[in-house]
Amino acid sequence: MSKGTATRERIIARAVELASTDGLNGLTIGRLAESTEMSKSGLFAHFHSKEELQIQVLEHAIAAFRATVVEPTLAAPGGEPRLRTAFERWLTWADEREEMPGGCLFMQASAELDDQPGAARELLADSRRQWTESLAVITRGAIKRGHFRDDIDPELFAFQLQGIILSWHQTHRLLRDPRASEHAHAALEALLASAHPPTP
Amino acid sequence: MSKGTATRERIIARAVELASTDGLNGLTIGRLAESTEMSKSGLFAHFHSKEELQIQVLEHAIAAFRATVVEPTLAAPGGEPRLRTAFERWLTWADEREEMPGGCLFMQASAELDDQPGAARELLADSRRQWTESLAVITRGAIKRGHFRDDIDPELFAFQLQGIILSWHQTHRLLRDPRASEHAHAALEALLASAHPPTP
Repeated sequence: MSKGTATRERIIARAVELASTDGLNGLTIGRLAESTEMSKSGLFAHFHSKEELQIQVLEHAIAAFRATVVEPTLAAPGGEPRLRTAFERWLTWADEREEMPGGCLFMQASAELDDQPGAARELLADSRRQWTESLAVITRGAIKRGHFRDDIDPELFAFQLQGIILSWHQTHRLLRDPRASEHAHAALEALLASAHPPTP
Repeated sequence: MSKGTATRERIIARAVELASTDGLNGLTIGRLAESTEMSKSGLFAHFHSKEELQIQVLEHAIAAFRATVVEPTLAAPGGEPRLRTAFERWLTWADEREEMPGGCLFMQASAELDDQPGAARELLADSRRQWTESLAVITRGAIKRGHFRDDIDPELFAFQLQGIILSWHQTHRLLRDPRASEHAHAALEALLASAHPPTP
């Protein structure tokens, strides 16, 4: 990695941190300059515009999501075990971490960008759409392997799984409910149980 | 209503509209002045600070949620019909409407405020907590009436119901998935069915 690339990576990582608490719209080049102790003109040379900065931040977060969630999920045995891995890795991802102290950047960005047409919105929506589709594909695998019944709707299952994660995020991060994780796991078990074939 | 109160109400309604698309943090007194064609100093006389403006906007939205969702819910017959009413009214509330073109202001505000300690965050969290508790109380009513089994956990049920609405909001507003509403209703039916007592 060249020195320029390393600097750029360090700045973007800091920008992801800031955006996870202050939002993508709250992430200004001025604020990032303060936080990285760089000059605004130095940052402008790297990012040119606020939209370009938002896109770089999203791309960084999408790559991190791939490494933290998608890759371990695809490495797990197919069908139900893979869905369980997806769920656990997703919870870990969405919790406060050093890299994203404000929780899941995608949830923050979804609320902000859903009304802002443009490249950043499209990038986010594509990434979320791909993940939902992956969950449906894994659900289809669970049906093929006989873990789930034939009449399970994979797209609906992905929708329901996403709902558990979103409810957990709000219950945990806004309401600070100590039972958030217990509820998320109980909801997962209920959803999986509802998809199982009848025991013979 | 005095002329002053009417003006104030009109300004706050406009502020709710703006905040639903641009966020509470994006709602500045400058931007509101532009949009209402009032002077910034005139608005400062009404709201004093950005935090005060955010609080007034949240209070307005909480009152609207009470009228649009909570009151019709409490007017419905107890137990499962009341839960169905809550769900339908909640979906109506969270969709794009003239008063909130950016969808549910609370979802927008949750993402923004979960990392911002202060009076606005507490007001929002209290309101969301009360609603979740109301859903648990209604679920308890469904158990008492024999609509649901005795072993249903009302807090978990409220968590699951909230997950469906949140997943619908993201699927509908960010992904623009035309099946969002179909999925939300199928998920509701599956959740209700999972709570029913075994047919004798």
